[in-house]
Amino acid sequence: MSLVLNETFLEGFVSQEEIASYAQRLTAAHRQLYAPDGQPKGWLALPTETPEALLCQIEAAAEKIQKTSDLLLVIGIGGSYLGARAALDFLPKKRGCQVLFIGNDISASHLEEVLAECSGREFSLNVISKSGSTTEPAIAFRILYRALQERYGGQAPQRVYCTTDPADGILRRMCEEEGFIRFEIPKDVGGRYSVLTPVGLLPIAAAGHNIRQLLAGAISAAKDCRGNTPANPAYRYAVLKDILYQKGKQVELFAAYEPFAATLLQWLIQLYGESCGKDGKGLFPTAALFSTDLHSLGQYIQEGRRLLCETVLCLQEDSSPLTVPALGSNHDGLLYLEGKRLADINRTAMLATAEAHHAGGTPTILLMAGRREERTLGELFYFFEVSCAISGYLLGINPFDQPGVEQYKTNMFRLLGKPGYTNTPEN
Amino acid sequence: MSLVLNETFLEGFVSQEEIASYAQRLTAAHRQLYAPDGQPKGWLALPTETPEALLCQIEAAAEKIQKTSDLLLVIGIGGSYLGARAALDFLPKKRGCQVLFIGNDISASHLEEVLAECSGREFSLNVISKSGSTTEPAIAFRILYRALQERYGGQAPQRVYCTTDPADGILRRMCEEEGFIRFEIPKDVGGRYSVLTPVGLLPIAAAGHNIRQLLAGAISAAKDCRGNTPANPAYRYAVLKDILYQKGKQVELFAAYEPFAATLLQWLIQLYGESCGKDGKGLFPTAALFSTDLHSLGQYIQEGRRLLCETVLCLQEDSSPLTVPALGSNHDGLLYLEGKRLADINRTAMLATAEAHHAGGTPTILLMAGRREERTLGELFYFFEVSCAISGYLLGINPFDQPGVEQYKTNMFRLLGKPGYTNTPEN
Repeated sequence: MSLVLNETFLEGFVSQEEIASYAQRLTAAHRQLYAPDGQPKGWLALPTETPEALLCQIEAAAEKIQKTSDLLLVIGIGGSYLGARAALDFLPKKRGCQVLFIGNDISASHLEEVLAECSGREFSLNVISKSGSTTEPAIAFRILYRALQERYGGQAPQRVYCTTDPADGILRRMCEEEGFIRFEIPKDVGGRYSVLTPVGLLPIAAAGHNIRQLLAGAISAAKDCRGNTPANPAYRYAVLKDILYQKGKQVELFAAYEPFAATLLQWLIQLYGESCGKDGKGLFPTAALFSTDLHSLGQYIQEGRRLLCETVLCLQEDSSPLTVPALGSNHDGLLYLEGKRLADINRTAMLATAEAHHAGGTPTILLMAGRREERTLGELFYFFEVSCAISGYLLGINPFDQPGVEQYKTNMFRLLGKPGYTNTPEN
Repeated sequence: MSLVLNETFLEGFVSQEEIASYAQRLTAAHRQLYAPDGQPKGWLALPTETPEALLCQIEAAAEKIQKTSDLLLVIGIGGSYLGARAALDFLPKKRGCQVLFIGNDISASHLEEVLAECSGREFSLNVISKSGSTTEPAIAFRILYRALQERYGGQAPQRVYCTTDPADGILRRMCEEEGFIRFEIPKDVGGRYSVLTPVGLLPIAAAGHNIRQLLAGAISAAKDCRGNTPANPAYRYAVLKDILYQKGKQVELFAAYEPFAATLLQWLIQLYGESCGKDGKGLFPTAALFSTDLHSLGQYIQEGRRLLCETVLCLQEDSSPLTVPALGSNHDGLLYLEGKRLADINRTAMLATAEAHHAGGTPTILLMAGRREERTLGELFYFFEVSCAISGYLLGINPFDQPGVEQYKTNMFRLLGKPGYTNTPEN
């Protein structure tokens, strides 16, 4: 695995003694993670146990989508789209088909934009939902399936790929009745841990990326993040953050220096927000892109309330030869940068910022990662999944449920008059 | 002005007595805002005092850009791009030229992407920087000006629009020597308050939007947000948030229910982060798009640590006729929504969520706004600028400086060996 924790900028905030003092708690958390206690932990085995036949089936479907479509509309919300979207933004564009994500809000303007994109282009749908009854994707599916039928008539069902529960749910039944193509979300994998199932793999493959390399990265991370040893970086990362939390830090900022990593940070916000934000506990997860946001959030991070800790995703950028060109003068004062690679200047900005934030009272963990490619991403997905689960157990909460997500839905169903929902508030 | 505060979901968190108790402090803050104390407050008068001749000049330049270019590359960071970008995402696409924002990071892949976009298309540059020496835009300018020269030779300077200091700075000098077209950033307007100067107005006009309507909205807000009266919604909004802050809330979440408002929330993060995040004080500003992020941050907001307060931007969505179509069955359980407008369902989701968050301990301010058009946006820009300045004064800090932004730069210059920066840390 290429991931390495750099703890230089934790000095004065976390000591080796404090880390060592977690031994017992870590053993308990480790046991909980691997205990068969009814929680959905099938994701732990995904890298190593995904059947070859399933990979071939996904690749074949992706090839068919590429041949028949310019555009794949992925309909899903939360864990049903964030992983794939993170991957598609993270990885350099390939020759696969364009993928748009929809059904993750109730915005009419968003849907109209996507409908306009379909005009004059061949398109298919990939609808992703365990039950099929989540309001946002269900509305989008009705609208987009109608558009598909208007375009392709009786051939429309062959352009619908459903990723859903293996046994139950509305989508499962519609697959049988309408003849949609079907992929399964394993019963024991929750939404935010599902990127390495067909939920993530099908759109990623349709966009032309190598899902075997993605899984190879996850396998490599699974090896390094498995045992309860001091060398397990996922466990250590969870301990570092728990120490910062116990000492009063309240917000964790995930940062990166490349715009292509922005959606990956959003995936992290969901992973940590839903896993650890309960029972009145947890670091509030948020994200920033640097150096961009050093000119917006930078002031607060440096001198606002001292409630932040930071994780910086440091990617290797070896591929770009772009350098600062000569200007013929030093009008702009950049002479000292002439001929330097942007990638090197960007990395210097990262170190300079970590030093400044640390000195200002914001402890910063650097997560050194590999190149912008499938393998690195597979490592990151799995590393964070394991570490987040351990973070939850260290907090004393269940990292695999999300009871608070239901509250707005209950209110919404009542206000919209959904059958079965009464007209009195139900706190 | 169309903006109205709805305080329904503050019940139990903020009382009328508490609001009334701010009278004296508000008077003091009001006096500070209008006192001639050397702070850059020229933005206060921008809506009413922008000369007609300047507007004509901007419109003429925008027309020339549209005639000669498919693409305008806006080079700037922080306040030099966030306002225009917020406007371009917020407003429905017009027939103007496409605008891309660059020079707001040091990412080689981002620059390569923008260079690829220029290939085969006519393009111009709008470089925005008071001094011209900020590292990120200065690097981007070198690279893109070279690309411009390679394409247009001696005609290149006629395609460079500089928005810069009226008297000093590198860009100012380059304008004279190279013959670039020049616009001025008034000396008494800081970056994050500059959207209604040529900094924002030129790219907004180049994209085809009506800058007079934008200013008309700001004029309308300036009328309603001017006096120190209980009816001034900008002052009241600042008081509500100060009460929540004094009672222990630490993070303010800006939320909206339309993806087109996402960048406007980023503009708010800069405005509040740089204005109020200093001296160890201030609410940490962050943003979410709902209902999308109810499936990521929703769990934390509902049940995590009770450190959040929320402002929801509620836009009128009258324009879209999109409804939930019939499916011919109730397979997906959406029968009860058939024929309903998405805009109405989205608004119901907003109310349902505010109710759920409030009940869960997250006080929520609804800011009811007008339609998705220039006028509304002008109102929002000015309302938030006034309110943010008052928030700063209530906190006892100077809302117009940003000393913390310099720290990472100082470190970076040292690490990069910039002349004049020593090789020892300078805390």
